[in-house]
Amino acid sequence: MSINVYKGNIITSKSYDELKVIPNGYVVVKDGFIEEVSESLDERYVKEIVTDFGDRLIIPAFSDLHMHAPQYTQRGIGMDCLLFDWLNNYTFPQEANFKDNSYAKSVYAKLIRDFLRNGSFQLALFTTIHYDACDILYRMLEESGLYAYTGITNMDRNSTDYYMDDTDESLRKTEEFIINHRNSERVKPILIPRFAPTCTKKLMLGLGELAKKYDLGVHTHLVESKAEAAWAKELYPEYASDGEIYEKCGLLQGHGPKIFAHVIFPSETEERILKEYDGISVHCPDSTSNVTAGIMPASTMHEKGLKIALGSDVGGGHFLGMNHQIARTVQISKMKEFYEESYKRIKLANAFYMATVTGGSIFDRIGKIEKGYRFNALVVENMLDEEYKTSLEDALERFSYIGDDRNITDRYIDGIRIDPEEVYERIKG
Amino acid sequence: MSINVYKGNIITSKSYDELKVIPNGYVVVKDGFIEEVSESLDERYVKEIVTDFGDRLIIPAFSDLHMHAPQYTQRGIGMDCLLFDWLNNYTFPQEANFKDNSYAKSVYAKLIRDFLRNGSFQLALFTTIHYDACDILYRMLEESGLYAYTGITNMDRNSTDYYMDDTDESLRKTEEFIINHRNSERVKPILIPRFAPTCTKKLMLGLGELAKKYDLGVHTHLVESKAEAAWAKELYPEYASDGEIYEKCGLLQGHGPKIFAHVIFPSETEERILKEYDGISVHCPDSTSNVTAGIMPASTMHEKGLKIALGSDVGGGHFLGMNHQIARTVQISKMKEFYEESYKRIKLANAFYMATVTGGSIFDRIGKIEKGYRFNALVVENMLDEEYKTSLEDALERFSYIGDDRNITDRYIDGIRIDPEEVYERIKG
Repeated sequence: MSINVYKGNIITSKSYDELKVIPNGYVVVKDGFIEEVSESLDERYVKEIVTDFGDRLIIPAFSDLHMHAPQYTQRGIGMDCLLFDWLNNYTFPQEANFKDNSYAKSVYAKLIRDFLRNGSFQLALFTTIHYDACDILYRMLEESGLYAYTGITNMDRNSTDYYMDDTDESLRKTEEFIINHRNSERVKPILIPRFAPTCTKKLMLGLGELAKKYDLGVHTHLVESKAEAAWAKELYPEYASDGEIYEKCGLLQGHGPKIFAHVIFPSETEERILKEYDGISVHCPDSTSNVTAGIMPASTMHEKGLKIALGSDVGGGHFLGMNHQIARTVQISKMKEFYEESYKRIKLANAFYMATVTGGSIFDRIGKIEKGYRFNALVVENMLDEEYKTSLEDALERFSYIGDDRNITDRYIDGIRIDPEEVYERIKG
Repeated sequence: MSINVYKGNIITSKSYDELKVIPNGYVVVKDGFIEEVSESLDERYVKEIVTDFGDRLIIPAFSDLHMHAPQYTQRGIGMDCLLFDWLNNYTFPQEANFKDNSYAKSVYAKLIRDFLRNGSFQLALFTTIHYDACDILYRMLEESGLYAYTGITNMDRNSTDYYMDDTDESLRKTEEFIINHRNSERVKPILIPRFAPTCTKKLMLGLGELAKKYDLGVHTHLVESKAEAAWAKELYPEYASDGEIYEKCGLLQGHGPKIFAHVIFPSETEERILKEYDGISVHCPDSTSNVTAGIMPASTMHEKGLKIALGSDVGGGHFLGMNHQIARTVQISKMKEFYEESYKRIKLANAFYMATVTGGSIFDRIGKIEKGYRFNALVVENMLDEEYKTSLEDALERFSYIGDDRNITDRYIDGIRIDPEEVYERIKG
């Protein structure tokens, strides 16, 4: 039995609306789980060595619930393009490169290093159609200690000739991946139909069978833009809306998480489905700005009882650091408020909750600095200036707005201190 | 006579719409000015030592034409507040601290270090009402090598008791500052009425006289929000609009630059004034999002022949790095396009032009890597991934979206290599 005690300014969510702040508090970690969080150290632990982080913050690690792993190498470029040009000039040819295993290995090793650097320890990752590349990613994730849902990305129409599967091939690879990768504690398979317009009904039905057979969840794009929703409806005229395609084809019948990226224009059908299947909508504020899709009505959806997590959506988004996505969530909610008067802005505590608690909720006991949770945590510099030290809430806010990986000084997954550079050296092979 | 030759991937503006890219080009710098920019090195210079920056980019340094120097220490905090709370809980009490010279010295030394780190070498800075603090800032700017317009900030009403001048005192200090600081080549005085609602007409008329007497420009906020414009009109019912206050009170009669921050709701009067007086409107995309003010119609204004530069507007904005303001200008222009269908989005080349050419235009021969210009330049890592090296334009775009001061490897002002840490050690005293 291993016990570790950490001291610092603990910040975690009390609720969606409120932060819980314990200045100079203690976290006792036993075998990777938090045993106690307190203002003063319980007598039982006074003989333990205390790692004192001084005025730094101890916060839960971030969950990035929508990210395209193969687009990492194209982050922050092609942003002037309209969506169609971006897909054809950058995304499709670039993703097609993952047929080359050495390309995949090289990109994915750096991506994992950078997730670790930036403190995103729980992930839901889109991939490509290539079995080997997906397998490489899976193994590297396993070796790194990160928590993730991933799998084979399915697309059997409306893509390009050089980067598409036929239906049977897509289903065969997906099942093979599931069989070979379903026994991990930390990296779990999930179904990833790219989005309805790139998947035939036959493929969707096949994925529905896999969802049932292996009790899996699904990760896809939902009502990402008005054009996408209209296109989906045109291709699936028998269904009332984008969301119903997944429901009626059986993709929501497993017990795994149902992760829907963007959800910018949810109809009543989508709202019903999100509620009924305990779906998580993933808000990706940078991406949604870059692709000019509109802004998810996140605060309205929250008030209706729907769950919202955050995603970097790299390469549609550019910043991997989820601290920036927290800040951008607040920023663009104000923009939505400016243009849509009845809309209620999102505050820092809300966005922090999305990136930690809700994002963490699809994993096992992750998302808070609280008794019973895994110690998946970040130690962050108190970035307030000496001349003007205000509150610890302000310190968290500053990190969200202008912090980067330099300001994360220590990283823990399951209570084990992680060094991103060491992991990188190990996994890059 | 000193000659230096630099080799690298040169990127500068060809026009508002187009970048000029010279792969592996040469810049010959003589006595601080660019003598030649070429694809291959002219015979005259082949005996010179060439500093070879390899695949890095050589770009013009940035101009930040709207930044509140005393708000540096409150960047990225209080962003959940509505404007009034932000002013009263953070900004006014914090700015009032600048009555303490040691506070001013400490904050301003770090600010200057960080301008240098981030590559913003030409500045237009708001300050506080305190003569000594403004003098400290001026002297530090002078010592640092930065180019700037600054002065005493004027406000004689509608602020708080503890942070306001009376009219005569404000004018006296302003004139004293002008007299003592008008002989610099690089750091020049400018009039800084905070904005019309915090300045009485008597103050405005007094500043108008100073504009004439010392041939000065002005830097202020203009139609920053609908509420501000309405308030200004209420306080100055004899004038048609916010902009006319400055015109009719004589503030636009000097030859110095006329710098107007925000300009989100320009009326025909503002457009006329901006044209007639060669005014520069400063777009501050992060700030305008944070304070929920709306979005400057920058591309429409450009089409009408108006000049747009960029500003970080820290503390309303949070990122000092102008590369991020370039990216954010593109991002929020898409948001405006989404909500206002006839609006035309801004592209990277446009925003880069704003942050370099237009911003630099109020200084002497600054803003391009081109013969005759000062060599105020940044050397920036080519941040494209090895696995997927696309164009040099993409490299600039990636730096704009996700780069930071770490990626700026070399900095030149007037051809002299600047080390931010060395300058900081020197000026902090």
